[in-house]
Amino acid sequence: MAQPINVDPEHVERLIFDLGKFGAHSGTGVWRTVYSPEWVAAADQFAKWCCEAGLAVHSDAVGNVWGRLEGIEPGPSIVSGSHIDSQTPGGRYDGALGAIAALVAVDALAKQFGKPRRTLEVLALCEEEGSRFPAASLWGSRAITGCIEPSELDDLVDADGVSIGQAMKAAGLDPADLGKVERDDIETFIELHIEQGPVLEAAGLGVGLVTAINGLRHYRVELTGDANHAGAFPMDARRDPMAGFAEIASGIISTAERWGRPAVTTVGQISVEPNLPAIIPAKVSFMIDARHPDPDAVQRLYALHENLIREVADRRGLKVKIAVVENQPPLICHPEIVTAIKATGDELGIKLAALPSGGSHDTQQMSRIARAGMIFVRSKDGRSHTPEEFSSIDDIVDGIRVLAGTLYKLAYC
Amino acid sequence: MAQPINVDPEHVERLIFDLGKFGAHSGTGVWRTVYSPEWVAAADQFAKWCCEAGLAVHSDAVGNVWGRLEGIEPGPSIVSGSHIDSQTPGGRYDGALGAIAALVAVDALAKQFGKPRRTLEVLALCEEEGSRFPAASLWGSRAITGCIEPSELDDLVDADGVSIGQAMKAAGLDPADLGKVERDDIETFIELHIEQGPVLEAAGLGVGLVTAINGLRHYRVELTGDANHAGAFPMDARRDPMAGFAEIASGIISTAERWGRPAVTTVGQISVEPNLPAIIPAKVSFMIDARHPDPDAVQRLYALHENLIREVADRRGLKVKIAVVENQPPLICHPEIVTAIKATGDELGIKLAALPSGGSHDTQQMSRIARAGMIFVRSKDGRSHTPEEFSSIDDIVDGIRVLAGTLYKLAYC
Repeated sequence: MAQPINVDPEHVERLIFDLGKFGAHSGTGVWRTVYSPEWVAAADQFAKWCCEAGLAVHSDAVGNVWGRLEGIEPGPSIVSGSHIDSQTPGGRYDGALGAIAALVAVDALAKQFGKPRRTLEVLALCEEEGSRFPAASLWGSRAITGCIEPSELDDLVDADGVSIGQAMKAAGLDPADLGKVERDDIETFIELHIEQGPVLEAAGLGVGLVTAINGLRHYRVELTGDANHAGAFPMDARRDPMAGFAEIASGIISTAERWGRPAVTTVGQISVEPNLPAIIPAKVSFMIDARHPDPDAVQRLYALHENLIREVADRRGLKVKIAVVENQPPLICHPEIVTAIKATGDELGIKLAALPSGGSHDTQQMSRIARAGMIFVRSKDGRSHTPEEFSSIDDIVDGIRVLAGTLYKLAYC
Repeated sequence: MAQPINVDPEHVERLIFDLGKFGAHSGTGVWRTVYSPEWVAAADQFAKWCCEAGLAVHSDAVGNVWGRLEGIEPGPSIVSGSHIDSQTPGGRYDGALGAIAALVAVDALAKQFGKPRRTLEVLALCEEEGSRFPAASLWGSRAITGCIEPSELDDLVDADGVSIGQAMKAAGLDPADLGKVERDDIETFIELHIEQGPVLEAAGLGVGLVTAINGLRHYRVELTGDANHAGAFPMDARRDPMAGFAEIASGIISTAERWGRPAVTTVGQISVEPNLPAIIPAKVSFMIDARHPDPDAVQRLYALHENLIREVADRRGLKVKIAVVENQPPLICHPEIVTAIKATGDELGIKLAALPSGGSHDTQQMSRIARAGMIFVRSKDGRSHTPEEFSSIDDIVDGIRVLAGTLYKLAYC
């Protein structure tokens, strides 16, 4: 690097807090679901900032905001960004930080080094969380990679029954132009994001180099037995789906615990019928979230979980339905991008912790069309998806410097 | 016995179906909560039938209906009956059958044998299920045994916020007379009830001799951990109350399974916060129902369950609250009553299966002031608390003949 890249902490902090005003919630939080008025205002603000940084700005048909710094040479772009929608409520950092980081980095590079050799683009993705339309997760990056079925425009509805196509129109966007969002001229995508876990904090490091992103499955499991009197039915005469659930949940969680990092398995959602203290339940429905970044290991983990579910249900005489409602393959981050980020950290004297990403990210989608990688910034107490999520401005600036240095390597050298 | 006691199956069936018309629900079911208009009508009908049978009828201040056949000798009464409120919905048999059986038995005795030596009373208890006022269970028998705190009149409220005192007034009863319901002149109480479990059916017998009634505890347990991201939080860094719940529920159910009959343990109710698929829960609250008819064994069962809860919570770093929200000691049925019922079965050639009662019953309350015992009638598939509950008229008539014969022994001999 000719010279260190200048990043002004106060400017960065101001951008984070200013963007956090759109949909501000619960003091330090944000409630900004895709295509809501506050989301429209945030996207407009981001476009304005890109404009002020001298970038060529446009919004695509799904509402992704692009800020382009044309390169001297023709050819595909090097893109950085993240999403600006939030959980309900989430915090100021999850997603938004990655869009701001890309803007700050490209702005700094342009100011210090002028026109790049290769075209750089800043990207504020419209939607990642699925917090308004549960099945819409990664809407922005799926549109770019051509992974949205047109039928989804009508089929995906929010809690008020509004379809995502209607919501787009209400936000001034034209769903008919969905196909125009697709890009085939992106060579590299790098996303900066908060970690959302406690690994960096435990390692005492502010910035992480993501080596892989967890593959994940969400299973919806339904166990059906016989509702009966909790006192009058002997244990040996029961078909108790709660007994089956408890054995399954305990077993699959224990498997992930025994495997240790990076395997994780969570049962976060359950529904019981009739859910009364003195009645053996008739039905227990629950969700399993299982993840691992290794393509082979994740399959073994899924198989163990599925086998246990079937064994317990069979032994207990319970009817069982298992549906895979979400399935994302693991992503091994592109070795050239991992190498470039690592080298940048070394040059800047910023020690990076190598770690897999537990959460899923737009990067997984973007990896379908581009070399992809991620940079993590330490999360206080590993918290996210809450107004309490927090990353220090020192860690954030270090993360942006690593991002900017990496983009410099890729676009200027 | 001088001669067999005459019970007309068609008459009994007509009474069951006629009472089932009050609050008829879901075809074969009944939805008749205490102090509702349909309950008032059912109680009035029952009083009318008692009157037609020549009994001296009165309703007490909580709405229990008493039909009295005065004995030749003075002294305390021999009482039989059960409750006429239902689950929401329940069936035609749970409770109602015991009130009808008592009426039919005393009516038959009076017609065949005239005035008894000892006073006989038929009792339709106002409330047992707690299906309208969850904390009011055994309201009728608690009033008779003086086990209602006057504050309960205001404190117990239904789902609409109506207090049980207000509901009594709306039904034409005077809560101020609560104290007058108490009785100290009942020597014996016998309740006929459907089994609600599958034991008689499995034994191929229509009538059961209850030897004991389960002691039971309802525990409300609250496990609190940290809500975090299901992907980004390693298993070893979690405080996951669902993992704790699953281990506890699996463990306590397994304990009861290994103990075998008559131990039972059920987890029927659970509530999870925030109950989302990809978030490690912050809190899991659940109910445990544990029962055993042996006074020592039930204490050992409780201790095992409580110890496991604390061990798991402690090991997993979870905050735990354990509240005992219901606690009924086991009842060993009175040996003289058990002997009288057994002898009657032998004389009538009706083979009785001896079994403990899994469910709790008014008999437990009544045992505080009287020698108490129960007769069970076989339940199809062991079902109860559902419109599908069913007992055959043959089994019912056998049960009533055993009841009538026992009352004959106690009141006429």
